[in-house]
Amino acid sequence: MRLRELGISIGVLPPGPHNAITDVPGVLVGHSTIIADEPRVARTGVTMIVPRAGAIWSDHVFAAYHSFNGNGEMTGLPWIAESGMIGAPIGITNTNQVGIVRDAIIRHATEQRYYESFFLPVVAETWDGILNDIGAFHVTTEHAIAAITGASGGAVPEGNVGGGTGMICHGFKGGIGTASRVAATESGDFTVGVLVQANYGLREDLRVDGVPVGRLIPESEVPSAWGPTESSSSIIVIIATDAPLIPIQCRRLAQRATVGLARVGGFGGNSSGDIFLAFATGNPLPAAPATPYALQMLPHAQINPLFRGVAEATEEAILNALCAAATTVGLRGHVAHALPHSRLREIVGRARAAL
Amino acid sequence: MRLRELGISIGVLPPGPHNAITDVPGVLVGHSTIIADEPRVARTGVTMIVPRAGAIWSDHVFAAYHSFNGNGEMTGLPWIAESGMIGAPIGITNTNQVGIVRDAIIRHATEQRYYESFFLPVVAETWDGILNDIGAFHVTTEHAIAAITGASGGAVPEGNVGGGTGMICHGFKGGIGTASRVAATESGDFTVGVLVQANYGLREDLRVDGVPVGRLIPESEVPSAWGPTESSSSIIVIIATDAPLIPIQCRRLAQRATVGLARVGGFGGNSSGDIFLAFATGNPLPAAPATPYALQMLPHAQINPLFRGVAEATEEAILNALCAAATTVGLRGHVAHALPHSRLREIVGRARAAL
Amino acid sequence: MRLRELGISIGVLPPGPHNAITDVPGVLVGHSTIIADEPRVARTGVTMIVPRAGAIWSDHVFAAYHSFNGNGEMTGLPWIAESGMIGAPIGITNTNQVGIVRDAIIRHATEQRYYESFFLPVVAETWDGILNDIGAFHVTTEHAIAAITGASGGAVPEGNVGGGTGMICHGFKGGIGTASRVAATESGDFTVGVLVQANYGLREDLRVDGVPVGRLIPESEVPSAWGPTESSSSIIVIIATDAPLIPIQCRRLAQRATVGLARVGGFGGNSSGDIFLAFATGNPLPAAPATPYALQMLPHAQINPLFRGVAEATEEAILNALCAAATTVGLRGHVAHALPHSRLREIVGRARAAL
Amino acid sequence: MRLRELGISIGVLPPGPHNAITDVPGVLVGHSTIIADEPRVARTGVTMIVPRAGAIWSDHVFAAYHSFNGNGEMTGLPWIAESGMIGAPIGITNTNQVGIVRDAIIRHATEQRYYESFFLPVVAETWDGILNDIGAFHVTTEHAIAAITGASGGAVPEGNVGGGTGMICHGFKGGIGTASRVAATESGDFTVGVLVQANYGLREDLRVDGVPVGRLIPESEVPSAWGPTESSSSIIVIIATDAPLIPIQCRRLAQRATVGLARVGGFGGNSSGDIFLAFATGNPLPAAPATPYALQMLPHAQINPLFRGVAEATEEAILNALCAAATTVGLRGHVAHALPHSRLREIVGRARAAL
Repeated sequence: MRLRELGISIGVLPPGPHNAITDVPGVLVGHSTIIADEPRVARTGVTMIVPRAGAIWSDHVFAAYHSFNGNGEMTGLPWIAESGMIGAPIGITNTNQVGIVRDAIIRHATEQRYYESFFLPVVAETWDGILNDIGAFHVTTEHAIAAITGASGGAVPEGNVGGGTGMICHGFKGGIGTASRVAATESGDFTVGVLVQANYGLREDLRVDGVPVGRLIPESEVPSAWGPTESSSSIIVIIATDAPLIPIQCRRLAQRATVGLARVGGFGGNSSGDIFLAFATGNPLPAAPATPYALQMLPHAQINPLFRGVAEATEEAILNALCAAATTVGLRGHVAHALPHSRLREIVGRARAAL
Repeated sequence: MRLRELGISIGVLPPGPHNAITDVPGVLVGHSTIIADEPRVARTGVTMIVPRAGAIWSDHVFAAYHSFNGNGEMTGLPWIAESGMIGAPIGITNTNQVGIVRDAIIRHATEQRYYESFFLPVVAETWDGILNDIGAFHVTTEHAIAAITGASGGAVPEGNVGGGTGMICHGFKGGIGTASRVAATESGDFTVGVLVQANYGLREDLRVDGVPVGRLIPESEVPSAWGPTESSSSIIVIIATDAPLIPIQCRRLAQRATVGLARVGGFGGNSSGDIFLAFATGNPLPAAPATPYALQMLPHAQINPLFRGVAEATEEAILNALCAAATTVGLRGHVAHALPHSRLREIVGRARAAL
Repeated sequence: MRLRELGISIGVLPPGPHNAITDVPGVLVGHSTIIADEPRVARTGVTMIVPRAGAIWSDHVFAAYHSFNGNGEMTGLPWIAESGMIGAPIGITNTNQVGIVRDAIIRHATEQRYYESFFLPVVAETWDGILNDIGAFHVTTEHAIAAITGASGGAVPEGNVGGGTGMICHGFKGGIGTASRVAATESGDFTVGVLVQANYGLREDLRVDGVPVGRLIPESEVPSAWGPTESSSSIIVIIATDAPLIPIQCRRLAQRATVGLARVGGFGGNSSGDIFLAFATGNPLPAAPATPYALQMLPHAQINPLFRGVAEATEEAILNALCAAATTVGLRGHVAHALPHSRLREIVGRARAAL
Repeated sequence: MRLRELGISIGVLPPGPHNAITDVPGVLVGHSTIIADEPRVARTGVTMIVPRAGAIWSDHVFAAYHSFNGNGEMTGLPWIAESGMIGAPIGITNTNQVGIVRDAIIRHATEQRYYESFFLPVVAETWDGILNDIGAFHVTTEHAIAAITGASGGAVPEGNVGGGTGMICHGFKGGIGTASRVAATESGDFTVGVLVQANYGLREDLRVDGVPVGRLIPESEVPSAWGPTESSSSIIVIIATDAPLIPIQCRRLAQRATVGLARVGGFGGNSSGDIFLAFATGNPLPAAPATPYALQMLPHAQINPLFRGVAEATEEAILNALCAAATTVGLRGHVAHALPHSRLREIVGRARAAL
């Protein structure tokens, strides 16, 4: 179930065909989902975003990041800041295993003899230690590589999948969500796609299109997975676009994820790792060029529709994660309840009818 | 008229006694307002924020900034970034006259023999060229100094005053607004105060506590000052707190202004200079100490109430600017209409009643 | 007199025809020099660097900055960081008058109806209060505009001119200096030009091509202008290149000025404003394009010769400032002595002969 | 053999008792060195710096980083930037295995039940693929933990040890080096210690105290390990001090490593990961405080001796790495020759005698 299937949409721009990050041509998503009850409880996994299908190792993308609250990890940041480029799939997993996933990307590149690529992988995380026995270190090199080799385009599985398997958001079950927007500019239409691993926020702060849904579903009705006043985690936002942006413009897009997050109810809490990465596929970037790159650059004055697209798609991607995620029982019997769809539909419907 | 006088409040934290940046002890605000029709139209001015009444030149404050969208000016940034300190009043004026206000602060310090202070003033701006004949360069050194010497505590004049005199926000008349919050932490209560010079945004994007008020007051009812699809300006947010923060924590506060701005309807449009400055008075910082400073530092784990306070106070300060500002006719007969209070009250009332 | 006329050169790359920032095609430099003894002592001025002769207002350049030590001012930084562009001449003056020079650039653009340009000028400073009665605020709007309109290509006056008139460096008379390098890459030859306003450093730290010249010219021989253990000032470095760089690469160049500065003897002392700005003219950037810019981008893997060029040209530009500057008597009879050429030649000659 | 044992010293400040990073009280260093010829060639390892002996997991340190050229990895950067703190040992290893070392720190903390610590480890790297069969992934979790548990104070093994085992510097054998300085301030004496993993630079650029030693030891005398015109690697610099600095001041120290590096001959080449981390132990920072921290902060105006200390100790630490490293034959018979001590002594001696 996705937000729009409940009759609710966000913003004014139209989504792409799958309303997913994969609407950006060439972008693939793969998940390795790890669920087990024995010998130790596993509710975790890895998600991989491949920026250019079949080519990322030899044809890089421009990229930049923004840290809204840095209580989290994203590897590879110095080279993104310096070069504005990424040349490998991007991983998201749990906090304890960023390292094995990072090294796995290098192992895979080495085995496949992707020699043109540099070896500074980008891997991010959020913490799933409420539902997942995170000290069991369930993720293996093979899980990470399988998420790359199994990545595909089209509709993206959401909720309790991949890196999002054990995540919690605004007290409900969270996880992976995605959305997209088509942004019309004077230079033509471009797609902005967003994928989130949502694991942050308090119940009371949850808003859907401005409506304070969280406050209206009390603890007595659906108890929060972390308790009502606590939240110790994070959201990773990956933004893709086919617009011809240069790195400085990718950074502008990355920062706009803050807008969507703020509108759902995030404020970058102290224990939250709210780190946003944006990449742009609109320019080919061969890994080892002999001559200067010939680039296109969207004029800054035309970028507002992309900013709006990032804000809207981030807001909707988080809500898609909440709508898709299923109630989960995990470590020590902890329960994260799904956001009740009927209540969501009812509350938002009531608020809209009044306007 | 302020937002709360209309029966509308924002968020969950209580405001301070004046619901103003001056609720932070020692913080003063002064305005020089310049209104004239001849020889050239003036709708402009200067606002000064004094971080420590009577002492800022010799007892500095910790500070940091965040640029959400940098299409604007704030002087003094390299030394704020390097030292984490400010030692002079902070000015806000129009785009063309940042320079004269900046140099005026040095002139004033020189004349008053404030020799302990460093001379890298912090002055920011937004662009008032729709209502004000900005090419007439109305602001003088005397206006700038008068805003310092006339600064006071207590209630702060809002709307068409000081630097905000000619500003426009979400298509309505904008200007200066302020608000505050009392944030309860395990180390005690601290005040967060915010002052904005609001001059950004589209009508359609305006929300009040999540309610899409802008969409519900059509152009046919109240025309936008810029036209419905354009906005070429900016918001400056100044944040004060008496909490004992170090500079790295001031930066965290500064970035949280994004949350309040996003909730009202800002997204950091390309032509917007959305620059946020936070200072903390909780530690004395003599300008020329002989021995190490003895500081207090709020633990990061206790900072969330301050984050929430910045978000709420920024949101309310913008709305206070909109509520206080009066309809203004300016350059070439351009009109910026006040936000109609009755319609605001009615729309928000309807939405709330439905929940 | 320039360093090479003394038989000393720096590094391995060849300089351009004028060994000056003006070797980058289209770059102009203008100086307004203000020297007076009455009614108050003036040893100050303004220097302007025009990035594109006759076109900068409508054809911008990519740019970025680096702050090695931020105890100084450079205006316009938020928009450089956000957009990566500059669209006006760049000013350098004394600390107290950054503002009037900044506003003067806007006045000039307004008067000339350069309506395509944005209005966030870039002006930097160093402090000349030892030799110049800085509290007299000698620089006027007219001085600033004259430095723009009088800017020219070819050989650049150095030493006691423009913004450098009253500056002091490593205890000797400092000021304006310039140098250039031709950097051979696989994509062809590019020029890197550097202009400095040098006003930093202790005698004992001065090195010329690694030789500790400062230590070998004792205070008893030539007394330091600030006293032997004090230095309260700064260096501004402006870097130009005709290579087709994007903003992220301009930032890389800007940071490399640190290398040249460190080799002469700078370490970014606390009271120093060591701020570096790099711009690249290799791509046309019309101010108001209707379609995406078509850009060239030098591959990162070919950028090392430019890095080396910045390091060498910065080192030599500082030394050119020292060689060109003449002994100056200023405020209250303070004397800044010229670096004695014969001693410089002799010491470096001896060291080189030994290798 | 260390630089001073050859009769050469750098700068004017006195070193601490061991002229090592461990002169900062409580700082420990541990190495796991991995050398094997079969089944695959290993010339690699891990080095760990423990910021507070026996206490880092529950008593953190202030920290900050600077990236001079970001073609390298250092994990944990978002939280350092956000919080200004580190709460675990800091690892340095080879490029391919940052991940396993990073996760190993979490495993170790989990096993030891260091529950107070956060779990965002800081691990950096340089690339040893010339001498080491880096695709064999030799480093294990056990190697990483052994470097922590075996860390000690006092003299630090240098050269071909730990993470430095397979490194190359200015064409000679490089690796681990360390040095320290005692910096006298008005607030008392503080120690600055530096440890480098040096793996960067061209032969022709090597300078020792300004003397162009690299140019004077031609390829015909000692061939460069990478060939004379290539260098594809990096330097990690870790800076420790017992001064009471806040995070913004640690960043200032981190950036000053550039000065020392530039003086030896580094210029932040494109393929170099020149990333610098500084931490300050001068304030206790309990991991879970109930009340505000009581801190000391060295006034900015007293920080210059620390800046000078960082510059000098970085320069000397690199040279100590070069002096201590032994000629190494590695993968496919590649040879990295030791810097010939007698030639170094002779060349520098000649240059000094001439002054």
